[in-house]
Amino acid sequence: MSLCLGLDPGIGRLGYALVSKEGDTFKARDFGCIETSPRKPLIERLVDIHVALNDMMVGNNPDLMAIEKLFFGRNATTAELVYQVRGIILLNAGMQRIQVVEPKPTQIKMAICGHGRATKRQIQLMVQRTLGLPNPPTPDDVADALATAVTGLLLFEFARKTGGPIDAPLS
Amino acid sequence: MSLCLGLDPGIGRLGYALVSKEGDTFKARDFGCIETSPRKPLIERLVDIHVALNDMMVGNNPDLMAIEKLFFGRNATTAELVYQVRGIILLNAGMQRIQVVEPKPTQIKMAICGHGRATKRQIQLMVQRTLGLPNPPTPDDVADALATAVTGLLLFEFARKTGGPIDAPLS
Repeated sequence: MSLCLGLDPGIGRLGYALVSKEGDTFKARDFGCIETSPRKPLIERLVDIHVALNDMMVGNNPDLMAIEKLFFGRNATTAELVYQVRGIILLNAGMQRIQVVEPKPTQIKMAICGHGRATKRQIQLMVQRTLGLPNPPTPDDVADALATAVTGLLLFEFARKTGGPIDAPLS
Repeated sequence: MSLCLGLDPGIGRLGYALVSKEGDTFKARDFGCIETSPRKPLIERLVDIHVALNDMMVGNNPDLMAIEKLFFGRNATTAELVYQVRGIILLNAGMQRIQVVEPKPTQIKMAICGHGRATKRQIQLMVQRTLGLPNPPTPDDVADALATAVTGLLLFEFARKTGGPIDAPLS
């Protein structure tokens, strides 16, 4: 059994998903959002995220962390914030010596839906089916974290079987 | 006496400067670079920075941290890395409840040279004079960290005198 912590980083809302894979069966063990208050200073929000993430990792001891590879969009302010959060996420993985896989958006779509141009809604429905959830997961941050965790597990397993590095086999 | 830790963030080389102010006298207590190896994975480099920074802050107990306000340039890859490092720097300040001041580039030039369009070389020479150093500080990362620390102390003192927030009085 492999356990993956999938993350969709953000400052106000960080989606997380703990997904296990045993044989061909994926199971969502826990998922939700780490939320921080916009009324707090940025630095306190970063500390809140760090503490919540640390608790989650120590408490669940995942084999793997999966976090979507970002590409710079037009909104520089959002990118600044997301990269600062991302630094803290990677630090947590490093401190606890957990392997990190960074699937690209197209790899996630390919892994979940079988093609690289799936919509948000298609991903949501396929994540629901793959994990046997009663409803499509919401909000988007949680659906993305679940999809990223499933993709991370597939990439991890592929790399273990082939002895190759963890990257790009699905793209 | 106030002690400020000035930082110029980067992944390969992070300039730091511990500067004190007593009355009108600035003194450079310590300065240099935290360097990380490009042969190591990013995550290990982030952990190395975190550990070095934590040791420095615990060992010196500064009243204040100063870190230059960044503006997105054209090089997105560098920006990604710098913001990830910056997240870890801010986390360290937050964990140790140290106040952070973020002077803008023009505020630093104004504070050190008296006008907002100073060159790198002018800043280097004025930092040398202000701190009574035997030589102009090098490399740029260290000169910038020293200049940021001096500016941070001025902004901190200004805010304390006026009872205002720590921002923008020099711009």
